Amino acid sequence: MKTTACRISHFNAAHRLYNVSWTDEENLKVFGKCSNPLFHGHNYKLVVCLEGEVDPKTGFVYDLAKLQKIIDNHVISLLDHKNLNLELDYFKETNPTTENISKFIWNKIKNQVNENYKVKIVLYETEKNFVEYSE
Amino acid sequence: MKTTACRISHFNAAHRLYNVSWTDEENLKVFGKCSNPLFHGHNYKLVVCLEGEVDPKTGFVYDLAKLQKIIDNHVISLLDHKNLNLELDYFKETNPTTENISKFIWNKIKNQVNENYKVKIVLYETEKNFVEYSE
Amino acid sequence: MKTTACRISHFNAAHRLYNVSWTDEENLKVFGKCSNPLFHGHNYKLVVCLEGEVDPKTGFVYDLAKLQKIIDNHVISLLDHKNLNLELDYFKETNPTTENISKFIWNKIKNQVNENYKVKIVLYETEKNFVEYSE
Amino acid sequence: MKTTACRISHFNAAHRLYNVSWTDEENLKVFGKCSNPLFHGHNYKLVVCLEGEVDPKTGFVYDLAKLQKIIDNHVISLLDHKNLNLELDYFKETNPTTENISKFIWNKIKNQVNENYKVKIVLYETEKNFVEYSE
Amino acid sequence: MKTTACRISHFNAAHRLYNVSWTDEENLKVFGKCSNPLFHGHNYKLVVCLEGEVDPKTGFVYDLAKLQKIIDNHVISLLDHKNLNLELDYFKETNPTTENISKFIWNKIKNQVNENYKVKIVLYETEKNFVEYSE
Amino acid sequence: MKTTACRISHFNAAHRLYNVSWTDEENLKVFGKCSNPLFHGHNYKLVVCLEGEVDPKTGFVYDLAKLQKIIDNHVISLLDHKNLNLELDYFKETNPTTENISKFIWNKIKNQVNENYKVKIVLYETEKNFVEYSE
Repeated sequence: MKTTACRISHFNAAHRLYNVSWTDEENLKVFGKCSNPLFHGHNYKLVVCLEGEVDPKTGFVYDLAKLQKIIDNHVISLLDHKNLNLELDYFKETNPTTENISKFIWNKIKNQVNENYKVKIVLYETEKNFVEYSE
Repeated sequence: MKTTACRISHFNAAHRLYNVSWTDEENLKVFGKCSNPLFHGHNYKLVVCLEGEVDPKTGFVYDLAKLQKIIDNHVISLLDHKNLNLELDYFKETNPTTENISKFIWNKIKNQVNENYKVKIVLYETEKNFVEYSE
Repeated sequence: MKTTACRISHFNAAHRLYNVSWTDEENLKVFGKCSNPLFHGHNYKLVVCLEGEVDPKTGFVYDLAKLQKIIDNHVISLLDHKNLNLELDYFKETNPTTENISKFIWNKIKNQVNENYKVKIVLYETEKNFVEYSE
Repeated sequence: MKTTACRISHFNAAHRLYNVSWTDEENLKVFGKCSNPLFHGHNYKLVVCLEGEVDPKTGFVYDLAKLQKIIDNHVISLLDHKNLNLELDYFKETNPTTENISKFIWNKIKNQVNENYKVKIVLYETEKNFVEYSE
Repeated sequence: MKTTACRISHFNAAHRLYNVSWTDEENLKVFGKCSNPLFHGHNYKLVVCLEGEVDPKTGFVYDLAKLQKIIDNHVISLLDHKNLNLELDYFKETNPTTENISKFIWNKIKNQVNENYKVKIVLYETEKNFVEYSE
Repeated sequence: MKTTACRISHFNAAHRLYNVSWTDEENLKVFGKCSNPLFHGHNYKLVVCLEGEVDPKTGFVYDLAKLQKIIDNHVISLLDHKNLNLELDYFKETNPTTENISKFIWNKIKNQVNENYKVKIVLYETEKNFVEYSE
């Protein structure tokens, strides 16, 4: 049997889709209005899921209040109300697509929990677009 | 690691649940009010997911704007504001259940994307009923 | 002070937008794909609100379990899994727009509750379109 | 190919998080306000999914109207408007966490359907916390 | 012109519907399963709206971060993870219906903001039931 | 009787809260992280409502397909994927709060519809914050 506990959070950020090795013209051609050099932004909805064993003492796979603190300290504090391209070193070279932000968040969470947990990230950029990133 | 990009769309259609080799009485017994010969309808919510590699140039598994065009041209244009039983050849013989509509959509998408992508369809017939169809 | 108690319900129906005194061509010109002669359909979301005094014995403006029975018996049973144009006398002459369905429902509810209540109907035809009808 | 049919239901219940072999002080330390001895409560949102073959006669993996009856008779009738800790024998010894309630529901559903179906439960305790339990 | 700023919050609580001057039998007759003497519970969704003038310096009707602090300190801290009937003096005599909880919250907010603001409360007890209370 | 037809749209934009006659320090003190000089962003959800008479020929208060075109041409095309502070003259002097953006949109819509319609704007900046602006 598999048991997975998940926590939903939100953050708001500005970004532009941008490949640093391309000209503005090439970026516009591939990314359209999403490459606006003056940025646009999103309310990101983040789902963090941990698959593992249920602790018989607590009945928890993971204490979701503790997971929220990890999310707050290692994800939300870095990304919320930020310009992803300008304020995060990681996205100075790496295009802040939903795929790449999901991978960034996955690594932040993975580093904070016991290696036995399988971590899955689901990240909604809008109500219509989302990405799942998991081991 | 697995990365999956998903796009949510909507279409509205009329249908009735109906096995063409059964009498109306048998259809009523099995499908109840859903077999009303004068039809009823739904706002379908469609999630199309593509699992694949992240292109290092774009940071995308798949450009969701392109995926939306495929969905528009190969799914929405066929199903939206249609009577599924009467206007689609496929559903003249095949009962337009959520399972069968999902399979129909899966094939339409699969034909349009590189064979390396794994395609998953999630189709909500109502807020309470949905089906997942995937390889 | 104003107190209003509201109950949310759902029904699924087929319809077409159609002015009976116009030709099919005229209907198509005004209503577009919504006038498809073979019908399409929706999951309607219905909000029924009653404004009135709070009964000091119950603490209710209106018992919402009783309101749900009224909605079930006088609205849902008439409209759910029906073809609105073909199966309801009211919509044989009257175009089943969200506005007109709301008015139809308002009358059904108004007839069942004490005249002191102010009745408001909110009807969602899709997630993007809705109508409010109230005294 | 995999086909999975899912049905969403709701129930409302009171509970407290509580390990019966711990003191109230220990419970408070681990579970915080969730261990309030006078209880709190939730609107639980339940997703029951059955993975199986599509019956070529009906086009269904499973008739969701029948599944709703199973959910009503074997889950909702037991849990809705109940105090989970005091009114269910299972939770007198077992902490009513979302994980443990999911396992309880999984067993109830698994007992009612053909063993060929793979059963998955998704249970939302709040809009932000949910658990998946599956084979 | 009218401008209204609104903030959405959540709290989880146990309660039973109960008129203290009635017998348990009378309560059961009127309130059904909602009068379970062992309680049940809900995830309440609360919308607090303030209608007023837009301050030309800030562009705000009201700073919603400040409003959230008022809601946290004067509403959530009192109601969240509580048994409304047993832990709030107000609901020892007053039945904790959505109507009465809304009135209770309205008074808490009204006391904390300038009297020029018109205050409206919308309180969802479930996804299907809600009450509006306003001046 | 009052009849109101409403249409829901979305746009994504970057902004910062900023009073141009204040120092950055004063802006930070009043608007906190929302005044980040490098911007953040949101998925705005916009509800446009028109109250008026039902046209007996169409059964519409207003053709919502036409309303969507007005919204697209006069609102979405101006605001979507834009930096509100830098790319809209209106918000070079006026702080792009939800209140002020609502007023901006109200004027755009009001100019495009017959003066007999009463126009209401509801604008969600996040899932928790929204503003209503109406005559």
